[in-house]
Amino acid sequence: MQNFIFENPTKIIFGRGQIRRIGAETARFGGKILLVYGQGSIKKNGVYDQVMASLGEAGLAVVEFPGVRPNPVLSHAVEGIAIAKREGIEAVLAVGGGSVIDTAKTIAAGARADHDVWDFFVYRQTIRAALPVLTVATVSASASEMNAAAVITNEEGCRKYSIRSLHVQPKVSILDPSVLFGLDGRYSAYSAVDVITHMLEGYFNNTEPEASPLQDRLVEGLMKTVMEATERILATPDDYRARAEMMWASILAFNGLTTAGMGQVSLPVHMIEHSLSALYDIPHGAGLSVVLPGWMSRRQGEKAGRFARLAREVFGVETTDDDEAARRAIVALKRWFASIGAPVTLAEAGIPADDIDRIAENAEELAQIWGLKDYTRREIGAVLAWCV
Amino acid sequence: MQNFIFENPTKIIFGRGQIRRIGAETARFGGKILLVYGQGSIKKNGVYDQVMASLGEAGLAVVEFPGVRPNPVLSHAVEGIAIAKREGIEAVLAVGGGSVIDTAKTIAAGARADHDVWDFFVYRQTIRAALPVLTVATVSASASEMNAAAVITNEEGCRKYSIRSLHVQPKVSILDPSVLFGLDGRYSAYSAVDVITHMLEGYFNNTEPEASPLQDRLVEGLMKTVMEATERILATPDDYRARAEMMWASILAFNGLTTAGMGQVSLPVHMIEHSLSALYDIPHGAGLSVVLPGWMSRRQGEKAGRFARLAREVFGVETTDDDEAARRAIVALKRWFASIGAPVTLAEAGIPADDIDRIAENAEELAQIWGLKDYTRREIGAVLAWCV
Repeated sequence: MQNFIFENPTKIIFGRGQIRRIGAETARFGGKILLVYGQGSIKKNGVYDQVMASLGEAGLAVVEFPGVRPNPVLSHAVEGIAIAKREGIEAVLAVGGGSVIDTAKTIAAGARADHDVWDFFVYRQTIRAALPVLTVATVSASASEMNAAAVITNEEGCRKYSIRSLHVQPKVSILDPSVLFGLDGRYSAYSAVDVITHMLEGYFNNTEPEASPLQDRLVEGLMKTVMEATERILATPDDYRARAEMMWASILAFNGLTTAGMGQVSLPVHMIEHSLSALYDIPHGAGLSVVLPGWMSRRQGEKAGRFARLAREVFGVETTDDDEAARRAIVALKRWFASIGAPVTLAEAGIPADDIDRIAENAEELAQIWGLKDYTRREIGAVLAWCV
Repeated sequence: MQNFIFENPTKIIFGRGQIRRIGAETARFGGKILLVYGQGSIKKNGVYDQVMASLGEAGLAVVEFPGVRPNPVLSHAVEGIAIAKREGIEAVLAVGGGSVIDTAKTIAAGARADHDVWDFFVYRQTIRAALPVLTVATVSASASEMNAAAVITNEEGCRKYSIRSLHVQPKVSILDPSVLFGLDGRYSAYSAVDVITHMLEGYFNNTEPEASPLQDRLVEGLMKTVMEATERILATPDDYRARAEMMWASILAFNGLTTAGMGQVSLPVHMIEHSLSALYDIPHGAGLSVVLPGWMSRRQGEKAGRFARLAREVFGVETTDDDEAARRAIVALKRWFASIGAPVTLAEAGIPADDIDRIAENAEELAQIWGLKDYTRREIGAVLAWCV
């Protein structure tokens, strides 16, 4: 276990009927708020009405800022920043999934900065203050409702980059699993892929001489739970218990818990996927289900021990041969992704294999910024060659 | 999964060489601090010198308040409160284990109250403010370094009672596993018993219709880790990796993580043990290793399913018969406690079996306060009869 700092102050209010508490919680941070949401699904499933009623009861002045799209874009967040500044907004409330929350975080940081918010994403500036962010989460995938990160795509150059700061971490997040009942099967599956990838990028990093058996066990327990819950959700979308397990597990998978003591966890699979969703606007989870098994195939030689442990502990593989077990882990993971309806090749995700060079060029730029020096255009191309 | 609130804002700074950061962290909360510690072990293992050097560098004014004993007593905390008030203390720094941290929390709450601090422990008053608490933890057991609870014994009537409030939860805790190298085998074992009991009291509560497979898996992963690490620690007290696993696992076992969604978890084993350590001044862990298996024997009929799962998942028991598996869980747990040198009968803990009535009378009073109505004197006596 390497030295680490763990600090996660978000207050989680979890369960049925909890959305009605958002007004009182928000009022602790300001009287005039920006309400950020997406394409209107919250108006169909009743969440919007619940939120507005609670905000009204708390006597809050609300400026609405809808229109966040999946793979949220910088230009839209910049619009939100201008509104927040002009209106004297005191707190930002995100009602939605990761895209909405990440847009809210970007607005919260930008509203307190006197320079281009993109400077934070390319590490030219450090976030030193932000408006308080609160959330009502309606998708279980990104864990953005309980972490310090946000991802935004700059349309100029299709650059999907990220920030990380405690200043933008939500103060309060309300999670009612029953709001997930209406989430369709495809997006429920993509959520599971995202959650699993978050965990496995850390898990594969948990190597000697500092490997932690505790962290391995946490990830394995979470992963089995996510797989089980997803299968139940796909069969019965309004299975409250399965939605609740998924909602809480998705957060624990990427709120710092499973990576504590693992050092700087690099996220090459996420990095390469960012280029897929930036260039082709596919759902993040649908890109990850293509890249993760491909990346594992490329790294099988070096990571056989880790992949073999996954095979044995999660997929019940029994062979004592690490290379064979590692190979079976990749097959089992691919098969499971396919079984829940997630694509496992570039073609299945609608991406032409001829585009590998273009994708690699895009991803290499982010690799530089993230400090993943090994991920040259050539290496990224080699990973993508396994995704065909 | 039942509705829950999870809020745990303590900043954890974990690892080798981290104690030197305590001065700068403390200075964020005040310029004049009360330094609470125990019987002087921190002067032998170098922790005191490290802390004082760091506090000095940060320019803090330090009032020392040593003398906390295991099973810390109210009268001592009351002395600390008087000093804190008189000296205008702005923050309380605990350097020690659970007893020291709990004394510091009690002082922090009492220093901001204008009534008897004991009123908080008998629920006559609610904690509405406290001085900020910080810790440098030197024992891994109570998780007090990352939770909102404190336990104190009122010598009058030998009442070992507790408080719980976010106001007294540490703002910052520094954990350097190497400070545990000098902790002797007995106390290392008692720590393991305490940690395991914290988790199992929740685990046995994780029942239908709201049972969470995720919480089961978290507890099982933590428990295996604690058992493995303890065995390594007893063989090699300066095994850094084992101490680190134990230090982090002990916190996750009782910081709210494993009980999220389980409703109001009752702690009957802790409750009955409080009477043992209040009346006989034995180490808390040494009382728990007696009471836990006794309580399980008493509840075997009702909890067979839960005990059987423990048997299968943690102790590798293979029978499909729940009653038989449950029986074996109790035997296995007792055997493991004995193997690490923890007492498993009242006699082994130096407590006369003739005293059962006296213990039950003491425990019944706390049962009333904690709202454990089923735990009459008679029922507590019946549990203790299994501890002979």
